[in-house]
Amino acid sequence: MKQYIKTDEWNIIEEGFHPEDQLLSESIFSIGNGHMGQRANFEEQYSGESLQGSYMAGVYYTDKTKVGWWKNGYPEYFAKVLNAANWIGINVIIDGETLDLAKCEVKEFRRVLNMKDGYLQRTLIARLSGQKEIRIDAKRFVSMAVKEAGLIRYSVTPLNFDGECLITPYLDGDIKNTDSNYDEKFWEEIYKENSVDGAALTVKTRKLDFHAGSLMKYDILQGGKKIQCSTEPVEKDKYVGCNISLRLKQSEETVLYKYVINVTSRDKARDELIPYGRTRLEEISQKGFDAMLQEHSAAWHKKWKESDIVIEGDLSAQQAIRFNIFQLNQTYTGEDARLNIGPKGFTGEKYGGSTYWDTEAYCLPFYLSTADQKISRNLLIYRYKQLEKARENAAKLGFSKGALYPMVTMNGEECHNEWEITFEEIHRNGAIAYAVYNYVNYTGDWDYLKEYGLKVLLELSRFWEERVNFSESKNSYVILGVTGPNEYENNVNNNWYTNRIASWTLEYTLEVISWMKEKDYPAYKNLEDKSGLRETEISKWMDIIKRMYYPVDEERNIFLQQDGYLDKEQCLVKELKKENLPLNQHWSWDRILRSCFIKQADVLQGLYFLQDKYDLDTLRRNFNFYEPRTVHESSLSPCIHAILAAKLKDKDKAYEMYLKTARLDLDNYNNDTEDGCHITSMAGTWMSVVEGFGGMRVVKEKLHFDPIIPDTWKSFSFKIKFRESLLKVTITKAKVAIKNENGNAVTLSVYGNDYSLDKEIVILVQ
Amino acid sequence: MKQYIKTDEWNIIEEGFHPEDQLLSESIFSIGNGHMGQRANFEEQYSGESLQGSYMAGVYYTDKTKVGWWKNGYPEYFAKVLNAANWIGINVIIDGETLDLAKCEVKEFRRVLNMKDGYLQRTLIARLSGQKEIRIDAKRFVSMAVKEAGLIRYSVTPLNFDGECLITPYLDGDIKNTDSNYDEKFWEEIYKENSVDGAALTVKTRKLDFHAGSLMKYDILQGGKKIQCSTEPVEKDKYVGCNISLRLKQSEETVLYKYVINVTSRDKARDELIPYGRTRLEEISQKGFDAMLQEHSAAWHKKWKESDIVIEGDLSAQQAIRFNIFQLNQTYTGEDARLNIGPKGFTGEKYGGSTYWDTEAYCLPFYLSTADQKISRNLLIYRYKQLEKARENAAKLGFSKGALYPMVTMNGEECHNEWEITFEEIHRNGAIAYAVYNYVNYTGDWDYLKEYGLKVLLELSRFWEERVNFSESKNSYVILGVTGPNEYENNVNNNWYTNRIASWTLEYTLEVISWMKEKDYPAYKNLEDKSGLRETEISKWMDIIKRMYYPVDEERNIFLQQDGYLDKEQCLVKELKKENLPLNQHWSWDRILRSCFIKQADVLQGLYFLQDKYDLDTLRRNFNFYEPRTVHESSLSPCIHAILAAKLKDKDKAYEMYLKTARLDLDNYNNDTEDGCHITSMAGTWMSVVEGFGGMRVVKEKLHFDPIIPDTWKSFSFKIKFRESLLKVTITKAKVAIKNENGNAVTLSVYGNDYSLDKEIVILVQ
Repeated sequence: MKQYIKTDEWNIIEEGFHPEDQLLSESIFSIGNGHMGQRANFEEQYSGESLQGSYMAGVYYTDKTKVGWWKNGYPEYFAKVLNAANWIGINVIIDGETLDLAKCEVKEFRRVLNMKDGYLQRTLIARLSGQKEIRIDAKRFVSMAVKEAGLIRYSVTPLNFDGECLITPYLDGDIKNTDSNYDEKFWEEIYKENSVDGAALTVKTRKLDFHAGSLMKYDILQGGKKIQCSTEPVEKDKYVGCNISLRLKQSEETVLYKYVINVTSRDKARDELIPYGRTRLEEISQKGFDAMLQEHSAAWHKKWKESDIVIEGDLSAQQAIRFNIFQLNQTYTGEDARLNIGPKGFTGEKYGGSTYWDTEAYCLPFYLSTADQKISRNLLIYRYKQLEKARENAAKLGFSKGALYPMVTMNGEECHNEWEITFEEIHRNGAIAYAVYNYVNYTGDWDYLKEYGLKVLLELSRFWEERVNFSESKNSYVILGVTGPNEYENNVNNNWYTNRIASWTLEYTLEVISWMKEKDYPAYKNLEDKSGLRETEISKWMDIIKRMYYPVDEERNIFLQQDGYLDKEQCLVKELKKENLPLNQHWSWDRILRSCFIKQADVLQGLYFLQDKYDLDTLRRNFNFYEPRTVHESSLSPCIHAILAAKLKDKDKAYEMYLKTARLDLDNYNNDTEDGCHITSMAGTWMSVVEGFGGMRVVKEKLHFDPIIPDTWKSFSFKIKFRESLLKVTITKAKVAIKNENGNAVTLSVYGNDYSLDKEIVILVQ
Repeated sequence: MKQYIKTDEWNIIEEGFHPEDQLLSESIFSIGNGHMGQRANFEEQYSGESLQGSYMAGVYYTDKTKVGWWKNGYPEYFAKVLNAANWIGINVIIDGETLDLAKCEVKEFRRVLNMKDGYLQRTLIARLSGQKEIRIDAKRFVSMAVKEAGLIRYSVTPLNFDGECLITPYLDGDIKNTDSNYDEKFWEEIYKENSVDGAALTVKTRKLDFHAGSLMKYDILQGGKKIQCSTEPVEKDKYVGCNISLRLKQSEETVLYKYVINVTSRDKARDELIPYGRTRLEEISQKGFDAMLQEHSAAWHKKWKESDIVIEGDLSAQQAIRFNIFQLNQTYTGEDARLNIGPKGFTGEKYGGSTYWDTEAYCLPFYLSTADQKISRNLLIYRYKQLEKARENAAKLGFSKGALYPMVTMNGEECHNEWEITFEEIHRNGAIAYAVYNYVNYTGDWDYLKEYGLKVLLELSRFWEERVNFSESKNSYVILGVTGPNEYENNVNNNWYTNRIASWTLEYTLEVISWMKEKDYPAYKNLEDKSGLRETEISKWMDIIKRMYYPVDEERNIFLQQDGYLDKEQCLVKELKKENLPLNQHWSWDRILRSCFIKQADVLQGLYFLQDKYDLDTLRRNFNFYEPRTVHESSLSPCIHAILAAKLKDKDKAYEMYLKTARLDLDNYNNDTEDGCHITSMAGTWMSVVEGFGGMRVVKEKLHFDPIIPDTWKSFSFKIKFRESLLKVTITKAKVAIKNENGNAVTLSVYGNDYSLDKEIVILVQ
């Protein structure tokens, strides 16, 4: 744990220079706009420890997997989000001395991520040789209004001298992924050009042939006025820049505005990248930095209006929840249905920037409640579009029908590099089915269900039909050889969660089929024709639902995580010596696998998803058995436990779990935020507040609230979009107030009592 | 399957040139002497498909493992037998044209591996441009008498012209392993020298710093007389050679004798490699090729006297069994206790040339019965010497005591590259314990047991003590998370074989402790002091033996391969479509793991090892259940089934299984012999004859025979060393004759009747 970030309501603040935490700060202070993202690297040269990272959404590389012995069915590549051209670079040389914060004295360093307005600012004084001091003020953002635009205002002020300055804005495509499997570079140069006030560069990726064009223009101001100055183009392999020679006057600020457009062949034809980029670049530079920033901040203000959470009485919690909401919003805007949410977003390379089940299981609720419906709809359409690839994936593993979605993907193909994960963690198919239900239940978007959702459900059900097998010895259907959400097990039989979510998928599919048959028979017939759905399949599914095997412990009256779980030596996390934690840093993988310790919610993940179907006593018995065995070494674990503990009215446990998730990155809780922030788990933090403390759930399309409030909080409030309404829910120790901000009446339940909400209701807590 | 090898009693013969099978022939025609080995590459340049391979026993490289996500406890490197300097190379240029069989017409090509005398000979006529024809006659061997010596007689005879010839014997250390993980070369040059009649080269390996010196001398003869000729040294990076210019006369044979010494820093100090090599080189070149060959052949004749198997009535079987015996003898001579037997011996790179459990489970019986006792003793001492490393290995995985031998090793450290194998296939510890028992039971070498064996057993038992855990729910000890010998399962619980061999290890250890306590109390006390053995350990082991859990199927009255095996969909191999076989080439790994199909003997491996403890009915029930589910996709599988089928008097099944193992490489049965021969499975073939058809076993230190003979064979006979005796056992359909060739009387049992054998007994078959 690391606490060097100053608490503040709306800002993330680093005061004083912390080169030892530079990697961490680079992650935390990242900016993005859904189309691209940028770690908080310095603009000027920096020879200290740094992970340079500029990412373009959806631009990836299929790096050959590293595996000792190849076997049939192994994924052939591991997709990596590409570290793209460095577009922020500005080299500064003062009187022949290169500005490099690792090599000079740094004073009054201050870095601020302004979450309200959405920009990153850095100010500092650098003392160069000969006691020369300069002030640097750098501000940048990637625009929420023009998605290809990145803008930088970079200024240099000599404090105690006049001098010469060579300043070089550049674009550098000679970039390497630090996680390159075979130490290769993935980019090749296609085109470059250079002029007195700008430059352009096109590079392409090896293998997949993504083209990425970056274009820059710049303005120089001295004494507040644009000036002309002597410039000289610089070109190297995959690099264009422009040397600008300037005379600096003591106490006068010299400002460089760098305007950049980043555009890729995902959005424009290859031969249009540069012409299109030129037009956009002209527009944004004409508009200028300040106007562009204003537009950008306005977009952020709108987002905050719809998704803010206010916590009174706990500044640190306030900052944390806003940080989480901020990162989620800058990672995924939902405008492009081909995109999804990588576990690290645009803040690092780890986990390849690919799509995991995190999206459906953890992120969907956030976007459902805080953003326009089309955004969560797009997240679901993403999987619909990849249905064919998921069918191919199942076929590749030997299934004659059905779809198995990949555990990790960029384009619908499996691209993880551990066979045990890709083959065994088939529960992801369940989360994808659940997301269909969750979305439809929340939005009532039956059109989506008819057009897309049911087609996905059908293929998922067909997969489960073939993946189960009938065990003569158990006289039941079983699912063998899986890994559940708890990845501290491998290749187990009858994981309760997997069996249950598989069976539930069949139940829900049958329910949707019945509904469609009744409501829209022609559409049903059409589906029957197109999908080849037959009565024999339906009766097979009913038989599987009826005769699915679920491991249980009769004695404790709990569901059993998997066959034989109780054969393991049973110990509790509290019995472990502190120095063994986290287990994954101290124990061999072998020891972890053989232990009873649980990485993240598994049986409890099922009880979370299907909470309508199980009573509180069942939940309590299972929670009390499993939570003490859970080490929460996935960032996705504490949130589910926080929600369930809140449901069980165990306020202390709920708050304990909330603390584990809320400041995970700000306090570098797991000592791994240098690699990037845990974006998908941030959605879990939001869930902890809204579904946990807020006790919000949607049962049979109706909103329910069952709030509790942590002792240390004075009040908290959150915004919820629900169908036509925008609700603001405020909870204090004394009352629950729900305000309907845009006026469409809504029926809801608070503490089990139904209310019709017109403008506002206030319920006093007993 | 590929049948281009001519059948012959004593020779492996290829007639006609088969460039399409060159990789295969290079494996099959390999030669070796335990110290080094050489694939059957051509001496002269060859631009066709070829896997150049020269190997020095025990010289390896720790290549970084390829793994996608590193976890604690993973092996850090994958050890590879090193492809060492090419010492056979002789370039030939005739009138300016390089001799390259891929580029000229080849006539009368004949390659013979003479197994009786132990050399490789190749004759051919090459037609060069301008209709020039030359005859090449190349003969080579690596000496069984001087282990560092490799000798080549290479002759060129122009058949229809006079011409100029430039002939270049060379040493080339610029060699690459084809299986290099990151495409690196592993050798660096240290030293080279060159003179008119020879050269020397020292190279060293990266990382481990093995030094390898190669030295050569040569003689040229024309018209049967040594001649002086004009020579010119050639040097390149890691390469020394000597250009010799000659005038060739039509029909006159020009002979080059190339004498080579290969010596490594495993045997000599680094600075002595060249001086030592010079002395040896002088000796062998003085003695000359013919005398050296005679010495070498004499050593082979001695080996054949002690280990030959004669099969009458089946020439193909005769050739096959001699090929297997030949390869085993040239792979491991037992002179160096630091060495062991790689699955491919010196015939290829695959499987890294490392030590597997194959040695104890399959190879030991061959060396026990056919070679001096010290040779099998050395195989056991090898593991004793690595006991400390095995303790470290266990500690690395989190065990507080005991030893876990590696699944694959060069020096005692684990060096496989699949975690699931290294962590889970702990049954290897059982095979190592069993080998101790097997050796002592066979030889009566109680001194070994006292000095070495018991120390190994103690640490193995300590490992099992900690590796089992007590299951409250089963009220028994269980072993979770293993893979048994059947590698078509992963991470199973309570693999019957593993549980049984673990418990047996404890039983045998306790038995040996009791014996030692009784026979040599001071030695016992000493052991107790040194090893810290306590009564509490002994009573824990007794408790484990008593309360170990064994999965069974009550209904069929069989042992169950693992918990839940019967939950799998049950099908038989005969129900599979032919085009699905072998499964590992047609099914995804996922599908294989989920199926009931068995790669190799698992429960049956246990019933083979512990056959004294189970009656024939038990064996029959289990055999009849498991064999039909077994695909025999390990080369180590058919032999065990052949032996057990013979024991059950199922002659047809025994012969069917024998055929699957006997000509595995000669007929390229699994289509993978290009990579190298299946050396360790060859010992299994020997076992199929001797323990299978011969029905030989040693029960309580007494020899038993229970022979059957395949219908197609007229007779078969084999030699067995047993303690002081050398027995020749001859079996025909009518009788069993056992001759005691060196005269020490021995008591033995044939078909259940005891005999005292003085010189010869003949038992008529009923």
